[in-house]
Amino acid sequence: MEFIFLGTGAGVPSKKRNVTSIALQLLQERRSTWLIDCGEATQHQILNTSIRPRRIDKIFITHLHGDHIFGLPGFLGSRSFQGGTTPLEIYGPRGIKTFIETALSVSSTRLTYDIHIHEIEEGKIYEDDQFVISCKKLDHGILSYGYAFEEKDKPGELLVERLKEMGVQPGPIYQQIKDHPRVMLENGTMINREDYLGPPKKGRKVCVFGDTRYHERFIPFVKNADVLVHEATFAENENELAFNYYHSTTAQAARIARDAGVQQLILTHISSRYQDNDLEQLLNEAKSYFSNTEIAADLKQFKVRD
Amino acid sequence: MEFIFLGTGAGVPSKKRNVTSIALQLLQERRSTWLIDCGEATQHQILNTSIRPRRIDKIFITHLHGDHIFGLPGFLGSRSFQGGTTPLEIYGPRGIKTFIETALSVSSTRLTYDIHIHEIEEGKIYEDDQFVISCKKLDHGILSYGYAFEEKDKPGELLVERLKEMGVQPGPIYQQIKDHPRVMLENGTMINREDYLGPPKKGRKVCVFGDTRYHERFIPFVKNADVLVHEATFAENENELAFNYYHSTTAQAARIARDAGVQQLILTHISSRYQDNDLEQLLNEAKSYFSNTEIAADLKQFKVRD
Repeated sequence: MEFIFLGTGAGVPSKKRNVTSIALQLLQERRSTWLIDCGEATQHQILNTSIRPRRIDKIFITHLHGDHIFGLPGFLGSRSFQGGTTPLEIYGPRGIKTFIETALSVSSTRLTYDIHIHEIEEGKIYEDDQFVISCKKLDHGILSYGYAFEEKDKPGELLVERLKEMGVQPGPIYQQIKDHPRVMLENGTMINREDYLGPPKKGRKVCVFGDTRYHERFIPFVKNADVLVHEATFAENENELAFNYYHSTTAQAARIARDAGVQQLILTHISSRYQDNDLEQLLNEAKSYFSNTEIAADLKQFKVRD
Repeated sequence: MEFIFLGTGAGVPSKKRNVTSIALQLLQERRSTWLIDCGEATQHQILNTSIRPRRIDKIFITHLHGDHIFGLPGFLGSRSFQGGTTPLEIYGPRGIKTFIETALSVSSTRLTYDIHIHEIEEGKIYEDDQFVISCKKLDHGILSYGYAFEEKDKPGELLVERLKEMGVQPGPIYQQIKDHPRVMLENGTMINREDYLGPPKKGRKVCVFGDTRYHERFIPFVKNADVLVHEATFAENENELAFNYYHSTTAQAARIARDAGVQQLILTHISSRYQDNDLEQLLNEAKSYFSNTEIAADLKQFKVRD
């Protein structure tokens, strides 16, 4: 599980930072890539990565501002042009369906795969054996969501040594024991799986916020996340600008991370008013509240703990 | 007057060629830049040029395929974000208005300037003191236009030596003579302007085609153009592919240029199947029909004769 940042700027593209898109690579977990937001030229950024568009099977839109969605029609068309055939699920606020359908229809784009567009409400939006995904309303003037991707706990490792002590030698029987609560050995011994499994492995939780002002009420939503990706459009001394434009400062993002007990904070959506040599200052502002902070850059990758 | 190619690829962006957009710089002529088509990431390409978005006051869309229009909403938003206040005229086939208005409305983009969207029919679409602009239906499965930008003839230079011979010394009187058909000098002599002007300067004509199959019937429209920008998606030996996908080959584009007596042909919209080392072959194919041919590349500039 790792993040690849495809665009880390705010509002308009610059030579250094494209508008927002973030890939969550789940190749080992499910041979999938998920995309959070899809600003203009996201598909261009993907050309500079190992991401394969046909592996992207879910896209989550935080909000409908242009710098977060204008790359969608082109991405969808190119995924088709390149022979993608597997379905694609798109989640986002009301309005996303009209935008996508109008763009595809006006441009006579016929996709070679199915898309399912889900206009979501706050709460749980998806669940399968592996993941629960939920979203939380933020505060951005227009409806903006934060997403929490929570992996379910995984069963513990098979305690091979203990099985060997019982005289059970490695072979297909090990998989059977993994797969079934109770297995009868050929010699008549009953094996209860729970006696031969280590402690379950805690699933990971990663959260990605859309644009937002700071609010304490977002803290429970990101509680104990392994990674929080949060916007930091402005420096700490620009509280008023941040408030007026419905954005956050470095310090506000870091306080959310600290108060929610997350493991790592990644700041993104950096205003183009800040240059390379301002980044150390921005980072230090955040670190004074929450030390394990990093600032994203276009094409930078962040591995989530195993 | 010069062309700057912002995207010269076909269908999908590659690392070498972005999707279609072409800037026609008219800085000396009218302090304007016009854009023909606006594929995704056109605004990103502009960041690598001297083009100023607020100088762009007309955009001409050849057809509504995504690789020619998906950069429009982002460009419009950024022109606003960067403080553009002067109006922008957009010309294109029916449907362009719905696309733009939906994208702006869904994304809550409020522009700081007026846009006027003209859904055009074949024929003359614009005229002022300097230019006549007209469009011609091409053959591309969906409605696709070629544009002709025709500069009006300019009055000849003032024949200064002849005025001096008449005893008229340089001064504000020269401008008066330029501006009026007849001017009475202080000594009572009547100056007829036409006697003191050199031959009128022929206005230039440049044509830019959208995607299209080859047809002889397009020849009169581009007759005697100084520059024809024409798509060449495929090599000469791919006539069937070109026909089936409603595109042209190198040779077909060159035959139009030759038969219309244009001065220069610029090929663009090159399929990503062709690599750098195929370009010489593509160029030679075209040159065997029309020698003054060039192949466009992203960010390449072509000056039109003075």
